[in-house]
Amino acid sequence: MNQDYIIPNEWSIIEEGFNEDRVKSSESLFSIGNGAMGQRANFEEKYTGETFQGSYIAGVYYPDKTRVGWWKNGYPEYFAKVLNAPNWIGINVCINGEELDLNTCKKISNFRRELNMKEGWLSRSFDATLANGLEIKVETKRFLSIDLDEVGAISYNVTPISADATVIFEPYLDSGIQNEDSNWDDQFWNTINVSTENDQAFIEAHTMKTNFHTCTFMQSEVFVNAKKQEQNPEVEKSATKVSFKYITQVKTNETASIHKFGGYVVDRNHDKNQLITAAKNTLKLATDLGFSTLLSQQKEAWANIWEMADITIEGDVKAQQGIRFNIMQLNHTYLGKDARLNIGPKGFTGEKYGGSTYWDTEAYCLPFYMATKNQEVAKSLLTYRYHQLDKAIENAEKNLGFKNGAALYPMVTMNGEECHNEWEITFEEIHRNGAISFAIFNYHRYTNDYSYIPEMGLEVLIGIARFWHQRVNFSEDKQKYVMLGVTGPNEYENNINNNWYTNYIAKWCIDYALENIEIVKSDFSTDYDRIVTKTNITAEELADWKKVADNMYFPYSEKHQVYLQQDGFLDKELITVADLDQSQRPINQKWSWDRILRSPYIKQADTLQGFYFFEDHFTTEELERHFDFYEPFTVHESSLSPCVHSIQAAKLGRMDQAYTFYLRTSRLDLDDYNKEVEEGLHITSMAGTWMSIVEGFGGMRIKDGLLHFTPQIPKEWDAYSFKINFRNQILKVNVSKKGTEFELEGTKELELLVNNNKILVKPNSLVTV
Amino acid sequence: MNQDYIIPNEWSIIEEGFNEDRVKSSESLFSIGNGAMGQRANFEEKYTGETFQGSYIAGVYYPDKTRVGWWKNGYPEYFAKVLNAPNWIGINVCINGEELDLNTCKKISNFRRELNMKEGWLSRSFDATLANGLEIKVETKRFLSIDLDEVGAISYNVTPISADATVIFEPYLDSGIQNEDSNWDDQFWNTINVSTENDQAFIEAHTMKTNFHTCTFMQSEVFVNAKKQEQNPEVEKSATKVSFKYITQVKTNETASIHKFGGYVVDRNHDKNQLITAAKNTLKLATDLGFSTLLSQQKEAWANIWEMADITIEGDVKAQQGIRFNIMQLNHTYLGKDARLNIGPKGFTGEKYGGSTYWDTEAYCLPFYMATKNQEVAKSLLTYRYHQLDKAIENAEKNLGFKNGAALYPMVTMNGEECHNEWEITFEEIHRNGAISFAIFNYHRYTNDYSYIPEMGLEVLIGIARFWHQRVNFSEDKQKYVMLGVTGPNEYENNINNNWYTNYIAKWCIDYALENIEIVKSDFSTDYDRIVTKTNITAEELADWKKVADNMYFPYSEKHQVYLQQDGFLDKELITVADLDQSQRPINQKWSWDRILRSPYIKQADTLQGFYFFEDHFTTEELERHFDFYEPFTVHESSLSPCVHSIQAAKLGRMDQAYTFYLRTSRLDLDDYNKEVEEGLHITSMAGTWMSIVEGFGGMRIKDGLLHFTPQIPKEWDAYSFKINFRNQILKVNVSKKGTEFELEGTKELELLVNNNKILVKPNSLVTV
Repeated sequence: MNQDYIIPNEWSIIEEGFNEDRVKSSESLFSIGNGAMGQRANFEEKYTGETFQGSYIAGVYYPDKTRVGWWKNGYPEYFAKVLNAPNWIGINVCINGEELDLNTCKKISNFRRELNMKEGWLSRSFDATLANGLEIKVETKRFLSIDLDEVGAISYNVTPISADATVIFEPYLDSGIQNEDSNWDDQFWNTINVSTENDQAFIEAHTMKTNFHTCTFMQSEVFVNAKKQEQNPEVEKSATKVSFKYITQVKTNETASIHKFGGYVVDRNHDKNQLITAAKNTLKLATDLGFSTLLSQQKEAWANIWEMADITIEGDVKAQQGIRFNIMQLNHTYLGKDARLNIGPKGFTGEKYGGSTYWDTEAYCLPFYMATKNQEVAKSLLTYRYHQLDKAIENAEKNLGFKNGAALYPMVTMNGEECHNEWEITFEEIHRNGAISFAIFNYHRYTNDYSYIPEMGLEVLIGIARFWHQRVNFSEDKQKYVMLGVTGPNEYENNINNNWYTNYIAKWCIDYALENIEIVKSDFSTDYDRIVTKTNITAEELADWKKVADNMYFPYSEKHQVYLQQDGFLDKELITVADLDQSQRPINQKWSWDRILRSPYIKQADTLQGFYFFEDHFTTEELERHFDFYEPFTVHESSLSPCVHSIQAAKLGRMDQAYTFYLRTSRLDLDDYNKEVEEGLHITSMAGTWMSIVEGFGGMRIKDGLLHFTPQIPKEWDAYSFKINFRNQILKVNVSKKGTEFELEGTKELELLVNNNKILVKPNSLVTV
Repeated sequence: MNQDYIIPNEWSIIEEGFNEDRVKSSESLFSIGNGAMGQRANFEEKYTGETFQGSYIAGVYYPDKTRVGWWKNGYPEYFAKVLNAPNWIGINVCINGEELDLNTCKKISNFRRELNMKEGWLSRSFDATLANGLEIKVETKRFLSIDLDEVGAISYNVTPISADATVIFEPYLDSGIQNEDSNWDDQFWNTINVSTENDQAFIEAHTMKTNFHTCTFMQSEVFVNAKKQEQNPEVEKSATKVSFKYITQVKTNETASIHKFGGYVVDRNHDKNQLITAAKNTLKLATDLGFSTLLSQQKEAWANIWEMADITIEGDVKAQQGIRFNIMQLNHTYLGKDARLNIGPKGFTGEKYGGSTYWDTEAYCLPFYMATKNQEVAKSLLTYRYHQLDKAIENAEKNLGFKNGAALYPMVTMNGEECHNEWEITFEEIHRNGAISFAIFNYHRYTNDYSYIPEMGLEVLIGIARFWHQRVNFSEDKQKYVMLGVTGPNEYENNINNNWYTNYIAKWCIDYALENIEIVKSDFSTDYDRIVTKTNITAEELADWKKVADNMYFPYSEKHQVYLQQDGFLDKELITVADLDQSQRPINQKWSWDRILRSPYIKQADTLQGFYFFEDHFTTEELERHFDFYEPFTVHESSLSPCVHSIQAAKLGRMDQAYTFYLRTSRLDLDDYNKEVEEGLHITSMAGTWMSIVEGFGGMRIKDGLLHFTPQIPKEWDAYSFKINFRNQILKVNVSKKGTEFELEGTKELELLVNNNKILVKPNSLVTV
C-alpha cells in the first residue's frame, strides 16, 4: 500500500506539517548528495525524537567481520558496511536560554520541507513556540555543492516573533557517531585530532581496519538582519567533538542567521598528512564565494544536469514529480567524475546493502548514464570493473578454486573483493559475471566506441569466458554441458540446476569473447599481442570454450513451448500470483525460506531478464509466450522487477499493464510502497524507471548502429519528452497523443527509425512523426 | 591422517610425556562425565599455556541471538550454546612461594595421564622442577560420581623431593568463566551470591536469558602423609570467585594432600531458593563417605555399566581400547536417568554443535541404549520427543506455515525449540522427522513393548505424517507427489528435489502411522478415543495421506538400476573419490561450498541410510548395486558415515572393507583422524561404532520378533564378545574364528537364528555354533 504525504509538484518534493512518525522517512526522501558525499535530511539543530542519522562519504566503508553459524570455506572474511561519517551539519540553537528541539516544542506550525530538484537544495521552515513560551520562526537551506564537491553549505535563520531574544548558534563537528547497523558493537572511527584555527575547526579521523583518512571541517559566519557580525566565538573541544558558540542579540522580528560551510576531505584525493591544508583550501574557496554565490553556482550546475537528463511528463504531476525524483537521486549518487566510485543500491541515503557495486550498475544503471552524460561516464563504470579484474581472478582462484585466470566478479563490493556472505549468493549467484560482459557489449552498441575493448574490456571478457567454461560440466546423461548449483536473478530459487538465464548468458559471454578476440586480433594487433602475452590464450583453449558454447543445455518445455527457468520448474505447484491469498503477500515477509524456494513465485525478471538483454534473439511471439508464462508467477518483490516488465509489456502493446508497472517503479520510494523508505532509497532501480520511459514507452533501441523508436503514450498522460546523448549527438524526443517530435542539437544530421520507418532528423529542426 | 600418542591398553587411555601442543587434545580425550555433568580434563592447578576450559552441566544452555546477514522469515530467534559452567575443580598450588604451573616449570618428567575406563577415574602424575629449583612429585586423581551425580572428587598430592617445603593449596570456585564460542561477547552467567560456611563455599549463579539457577560448591580436606590436618583456612572472596588457603609444612619425601569435593546443584532438581541447602546435603553425603569410599563406589558403578555394555576384542589391543573408549564416553554423556536430557553430539567435551539433541539420537544412539540398558532408558529417549511434540507442532505452524497439527521436530534442540539457523538445515533437512518415527518402530521391534505407541507415540506419528502429507505437492508434470527443496542426510547437497531417502521415509512414516492408527483403534480403544479427540483425525484425512504415500515419486535410473539420490544426480561429473586428487581432501576444508554442492561427493550415507533403515524392503542384490554405486562417491566426512557403511559391507561379506570402516569410526577421536579432537569428542558416532560390531560383524537383526545373527570376524582379531539385553533377557555373544558361543542369563530360554538357522539357547548354558 502506498503512502501519500508528499505534496505533488513538478519540480519539488514537498512535505507540509510536522509529523514525528514521518521524520525518518523524510530523512530518506529529502536526502541530498553530490556524487562525492551525501546525507540524510537530518535536522541541523538538536532533535531528541526518533531519527536515523546518516552522512556518507563516497568510497569510505568499513569491513565488518563475517560471522556465521557454520563457516564455509571460501567465505569472504568480511562484509562491507556503509559507514556513517562524522557529522558536520550540526548547529545547536539556543534562544533565550531554551534549546531548540522540535521534539519538545510547545507548538509547531507551518512546518514545510522542500527538496528543490531544479536547483539542488533542501529547505525547511517552521514556526515554533518554545517551552519558555517564546515564539520563533525558523528557515534553513542546505545543499552539497556540485562544483566544489567536498563542501556543503547551510543557511540557518531564526526570527523571534513574540519578544526580543538572545540567539546562540553552536555549530559543531562530531566524530563520536554511530552506525544504525553496528551489530557487533565495533567502533568504526578512530579520531586522531580535533583542532581549531580562528573560526575554522577540523576533526581528523580515520576508519578502523580500512584506514581511510578524513578531515571533517567547518567554518561559520553569523548575521543579524543580513549584516555580518564579527565575533570571537567561544570554543569547546572534546576527544571527538568541537563547537563554536556565537551569541547574537535580535529584536522582535529581526533575524539571526548563520552560514555554515562544512564537509570532508579524504586521502583518496589528498595526501593524508595534508588533509587540514586541503580542508583550508576548500573552505577558502567556499567562503570567498559565500553562501549565495555558491547557491547560484549550484542552480547552474543542476540546470546543466537537467538540460541533459530531464524527462517531462504533461498531464500527470505525480508522474512528473516521480521521474524527476528518480533522476535527481541518481545524480546525487553518481556523477561519473571518479572511476574509483560506483553506484550503491541505497546511494547516500541509508546503510542497508553494505556495498557500492552490484550487478545493478551494469544491468540497470548503465543505460541511464550512457544516455544522459558524456560517454566517458559510462566508460568510467566499465573501467571500474577492469581495475578490479585482478581481484575477480583472485576471488575465483582463492575462494572458489578456479584456475587459469578465470574471473568471478563479486556480488557485492567496495574495492573489488567480495563482501557478501550468504553462500547461495556469494558462491552461486554467478550470473552477475554475465551482466559485466553484457555491459561491454551494450556500451559498444550504444556509443560505437570500440576503444574500451582492445584497451581493457577484452581481458575482462576473457576472464569471464574462462569462468563459464570451467563452471559447467558435461552431463553424460544429457550429452550437453550443464550448469549445476546456481542462483539466478530470481533469488527466490537457490542452488538450482540449469537456470536458463545463467546458461544463456554464459554461452553468450563465450561467443562474445570469441568474436572480440577475432576483431582485436585482426584490427588491434598490438593490443592483441599484449593480451595474448598477459592471458596466454591459445587456439586450443578457445576451441574448448566453443565446444561448451555450442553444446550448452537449455531446459525447455515442449508442452508450454517455453524455456524453463530451471530444471524441474514444472514440478512446482503452479498457482498464479492472482490466485494466491493476498494475506500471504509479500511472501518474503510471510513465508519461511523453504516455502518461498519450492513455490513457483519469482522475485524479479529471470527468464524474462534474458529476453530483455537478448530481445533480438527471439521473436515477439516468443517474448509474448514467455511473458505470459512467467509474469503471472512474478511477485515483483525486488525494486528491480517492475521496470523490465514495464518495458516488455510496452513492447507487447499492453500499455495499461506497462503503465501499472511504471507507476510502481517511479513512486516506489516517494509513496513508500514497501513501508521501508526510512531505511533509505532504492537508487539503482531508479535507473530502471528511466528505462521504462525511454525504452518502454519510447521504445528506444539500437539495432545495426541505428536508433529505433516505437513511441507509445500512457492514456493518463498528455505528453512526455526525454533527451538522449546518442554518439555525441543530442536528440530530444517529444511524444504526445498526436505524434512524436524529434529535435536534434548540433550540426550533424541523424538517421533513425520510427516504428521501423527510416527518417532523417536535421540539426535544429523539428521532425514530427 | 591419524595421530598416534595414546598408549595402547585394554582398559585405560594413557598418555606419557608432557607435550604442550597436545594439552587441548588430551583435555578432550581424557574428559569425564556422569550423565548429569561432565568436564574436559583441564588441570586443577594454574596453567598458563594453551587450554580450552570446559565444565558442563546437563540441560544448562544459553540461547545466543541469531544474527545473520539477511534475515529469513521463520528463523529461530536464537541458537543454543553449550555453556561452560563455573569452575569447581580449581586448586592453585604454591610450593615454597612458587606457583605450580606446568607451562613455566624448569623441567617436567614422568608425566603420565590415565583415564581408567574400568573404574571410571582420571589420574595424572609428574615430576617437576620449579623455577625456584625445588623438585616435586605430583599425583592427582579425579572422578565424577555415578552414584552421587551432583558431585565430583579430587585427590591432589604433592611430595617435595629436593627439600622441605611449605605447600599451599588454594582450592577455589570461579564463575567468572568464558565460553570459547562467545562470538558476540555476551555474558552468559550472572553471579548472584558468593558465600562460605566453615570449610564449604558456594557460588549461586544463573544463566542469562534461560535463567537456569545453579549453585557451584566445594569442600576440602588436607592431609600430610595421609594424616588429616585441621585448619581454619583463610578465605578470599570476590564478585565471582571464592578460595580457601590451606598451608601445610612437609619434609622432603613427605606428601601434602588435598581432597576436594565439588560440583553443581541445579534448579531442574531442586527448589531454586534452596540450592545452598541442596549443596550442603550433597557435600555431607560425599564427605561422610570420604574420597576412598566414594572411589570404591565409583568402581562398583562402572563395573555394573561394563557388566552389561562391555565389548571384548581379543588379539587387537587398539581395537579393544577403541571400542571401550566409545562405550565409556557414551556412558559419560547419557545414562538414561532423566527423560528431560538427551545426547549431545559432543557430550560434555566441547562446545561445538550447540545443542543436545540431533537426529543422531534416534538414528544412531537408540540401538546402543536399547541393548545395553534397561528398556526404560530407550523409552525415556522416545518420551523426550513426545514431551516436545507441542513445540514441534508450533515450529511447523509458526515458523514454516504448516497447518492442522503437522509437526516438524527441530534439527538441533535443547528444549524442543529449533536452535540452529542455517536455512538449508533448519527449514530443509526435514528427514530428521522420519528418524523420530523410525525410532518408535525400532523400539517396538526390539523390545516388543507396544505401550509407548498408544500412550504417546501415536500422536507423534500423526503429527509427523501430517507434516509429510503437507510437505509434498502434486507434480502435474510427473503425475506423482514430489518433495521439492530438501537437504538429505548427505549435507553436501542443499535444496534438492526428490531426495530418495526423504521421499522414502516420508512414505514409510505415513504408512506406519496409518498402520498404528488401525492397531490402536482396534486394541486400545480408550487411547484411540483420546487421540482422536485431541488430533481430530478423520477418515477423509487418512485417505488423503494414503493417496500421497501410494503415489510418491522416487527418482530412478533405468541405466544404472538404482534409485537416484535426488533429481538430476546423473548430471554431475561422476568422478569417484578414488580418482579424486588426494590433495583436495577433505573437501569441506579445501573446496568452496558451491563446488561441494555440485560435486557428486557424499558426506555420509544418504540413499544407503535408507537401505540401512529399511534393509528388509530390498534384496541383497539391490543393496549391493546401490552400495557399489554410491559408496565410491562417499567421502565419509561425517563421523556418522563409516558405521553404516561398515554394517553394509559386512552384510555383503566384504569383511576387509567393513573392518577399514570400523577402524575409522572406533579410533576417530583417539587417533584424531580429523585433527580437531581438541574441540571435543564425537559422542553420537560412538554409538555407531557399537553398531558396527553388533549389527555389522555380529549381524544382529530382529525379524518377526526373533533375534538373528550372522557372525563374522575380522581376520585381524582372534575373538570378540558383546552382550545385549533383548526383551529383558541378557544374552552374551562370543565370536571367535572357531565359531560363535551364546550364553544366556536368567531363567527363560531364547530362540534365535544364526545364519538363518534356528537355535534354542537355554539359560546359564553355552551354545556353540
